Amino acid sequence: MKSNKILVINAGSSSLKFQLMDAVTGEVFAKGNAERIGIKDSFLTYKRNEEKTVFNEDFKNHKVVMEYLLKLLVSEEHGVIKSIDEIGAFGHRVVHGGVKHFEPCLVTDEVIKDLQEAVDLAPLHLPAHIMGIEACMQSAPSIKNVVVFDTGFHSQIPEKAFRYAIPKKDYEELKIRRYGFHGTSHYFISHEYAKIVGKNVEDLKIITAHLGGGCSISAVMGGHSVDTSMGFTPLEGLIMGTRSGDIDPAVVEYLSLKRNMTVSETLKYLNKQSGMLGLTDGKYSDNRDIEQNLDNPDCALALDMMCYRIQKYIGSYIAAMNGCDAIVFSGGIGERGILVREKVLSGLTCFGIEVDKDANKEVFGNSGRISTKNSKIDCYVVPTNEELVIAMETKKIVENK
Amino acid sequence: MKSNKILVINAGSSSLKFQLMDAVTGEVFAKGNAERIGIKDSFLTYKRNEEKTVFNEDFKNHKVVMEYLLKLLVSEEHGVIKSIDEIGAFGHRVVHGGVKHFEPCLVTDEVIKDLQEAVDLAPLHLPAHIMGIEACMQSAPSIKNVVVFDTGFHSQIPEKAFRYAIPKKDYEELKIRRYGFHGTSHYFISHEYAKIVGKNVEDLKIITAHLGGGCSISAVMGGHSVDTSMGFTPLEGLIMGTRSGDIDPAVVEYLSLKRNMTVSETLKYLNKQSGMLGLTDGKYSDNRDIEQNLDNPDCALALDMMCYRIQKYIGSYIAAMNGCDAIVFSGGIGERGILVREKVLSGLTCFGIEVDKDANKEVFGNSGRISTKNSKIDCYVVPTNEELVIAMETKKIVENK
Repeated sequence: MKSNKILVINAGSSSLKFQLMDAVTGEVFAKGNAERIGIKDSFLTYKRNEEKTVFNEDFKNHKVVMEYLLKLLVSEEHGVIKSIDEIGAFGHRVVHGGVKHFEPCLVTDEVIKDLQEAVDLAPLHLPAHIMGIEACMQSAPSIKNVVVFDTGFHSQIPEKAFRYAIPKKDYEELKIRRYGFHGTSHYFISHEYAKIVGKNVEDLKIITAHLGGGCSISAVMGGHSVDTSMGFTPLEGLIMGTRSGDIDPAVVEYLSLKRNMTVSETLKYLNKQSGMLGLTDGKYSDNRDIEQNLDNPDCALALDMMCYRIQKYIGSYIAAMNGCDAIVFSGGIGERGILVREKVLSGLTCFGIEVDKDANKEVFGNSGRISTKNSKIDCYVVPTNEELVIAMETKKIVENK
Repeated sequence: MKSNKILVINAGSSSLKFQLMDAVTGEVFAKGNAERIGIKDSFLTYKRNEEKTVFNEDFKNHKVVMEYLLKLLVSEEHGVIKSIDEIGAFGHRVVHGGVKHFEPCLVTDEVIKDLQEAVDLAPLHLPAHIMGIEACMQSAPSIKNVVVFDTGFHSQIPEKAFRYAIPKKDYEELKIRRYGFHGTSHYFISHEYAKIVGKNVEDLKIITAHLGGGCSISAVMGGHSVDTSMGFTPLEGLIMGTRSGDIDPAVVEYLSLKRNMTVSETLKYLNKQSGMLGLTDGKYSDNRDIEQNLDNPDCALALDMMCYRIQKYIGSYIAAMNGCDAIVFSGGIGERGILVREKVLSGLTCFGIEVDKDANKEVFGNSGRISTKNSKIDCYVVPTNEELVIAMETKKIVENK
């Protein structure tokens, strides 16, 4: 079955995002999201070209969504394909592959068992992903399923960077280590950057900043991630919309004791009520809101802190790679955060970085250079396309087997 | 009372370190340590010039130690002064001044009350420091007491660097922020470096690495600390003898749940059983042992990780200051860790650092340059002298009042 049309699936606990796309050209035929699955008032948003339709249906589980979606994709009124057989494969985004899976692979019973065993490492995501995979298997048994891991691109991080300085047995028995996330994005933007500038990614040292609701930054050397800011979970690293990023681990104890929270409640607090939202006293988690309220000192500080943290990571990854050819921004903030990019880069002239302020203002949601010709580090914006990476990897796997 | 002789006191819960020194010349008249105070088999080690004596005495509390020590200092057989009146003041090292105290100050009832209120921020240290201060007040009521804070030198860190991205109210109400420690050491080595090379510290951007049993690194700009790796507590930052340094805060939850530890037990675990000790499976916490066992892969990894973390902090602080004139090493490992210094610096050629391997081998426990003339960043070793800083500050305070 050599179809280039891949249905990319990103299943959450009560949602299922999908995108039917061409794995070669990147053309998107249809995409959308089913929300509130298993909850009252569930609905599915469906986009075909410029046309957007919302279907209010009672989606009691992921399987019902998949059955509905597959009918929709071939329906006369809303369809984009004639038959389900046109779908080459389902490509699933999976946040975490545990310790066994980093590389994309075909879903087998063994793989599902491995993912079930890894649930503790991503308790919010993996059960939902498994539900999504099983829904696909049940609704269209003839179509193959491929899993692509967010941790995958970070599989070659050296041990000195992925280990924590905790007792060795906690790494060996509990598998506590840096995994890193946003792997498909860091892969895409680093390789895409090299393609755009006509260079060989193997020859480059690139720092990739994926800045969105979640933010992470990676050191990409020779085409592989050699360090990344998210760690054992997506909490570590940069300051994010609602996540604290790096803090003294002792703060967990102090908050837990002083606010009378269990350790799990404290971690939820650091994941859901911290970051930009916490700094602005519960007001703004979105960078666009922050930038529009800079006369509010909390917003000004939050922006300063976010940019300062990014600057420090850039410095540390230049050290980690002992050099840097390019810094690539992506994600919602990276692609549209003109102010963030300017603030971050204009404070790093010591590295020979020279931001082109006019060019930076023009690059908004598209790709382009934002540094001057004299800049010793090439600064670039590359819109990410995680779905395309999943579709490409899925096609590769299905055709190889 | 204008005596330059200051008795510097560092009181722990069952110990009391002391050093009677000249606050101007730095000359040390006597020094030592009382150990196992309030425990069976307490003793006091006393050094005068090359002469070392151990006194086995029943020290039931810090007051008994102080009374014994003051007699010793004036005794015919072991004394170094003729009368207690020769002591200009007691200068106390205090780990944490809470949110009210950063600058050195004369001890008053108010100050003791402030320290008592700050106990939660340093529960292991502050009660002991207060015991030490009260023991001095009771044993020699005529001598003034000055407190010098480990957090003091970091008082000018800008808000973007001292705040964490947690809810604003946790900063305002619970005072959770980066305080930083080893302040007297970072102060001393940065200012001493400037003095040695004949430059004005106000004009310099210096990275100071205090590497000992505890390790921290600071960005010192214009003579002030503008960022530092230890945070709310001395756990954050570099990898240390038994402390993890930076980790994903989510690891605290995972360890707590999987190892069935309370959050406080987990934090003790990260403070006492992690770091180099944890990485080497409980074998070595001392860098000298690690370096002598590099054929053991655990030791090789631990050393790699420690050096890599230092390199990343150097990069991040170059970014933080947007430049760097000098890197200064100090502390047991910084002063004697020839291999650590070489490993760290030789991987940072991208910043124009050129380590002089021969010079580096010769600098062992003394001060000296370890980079070549061509190096764009001057790399130096300066042995620290925290006691001298405490003595100088104490003299200054006593004479101003």
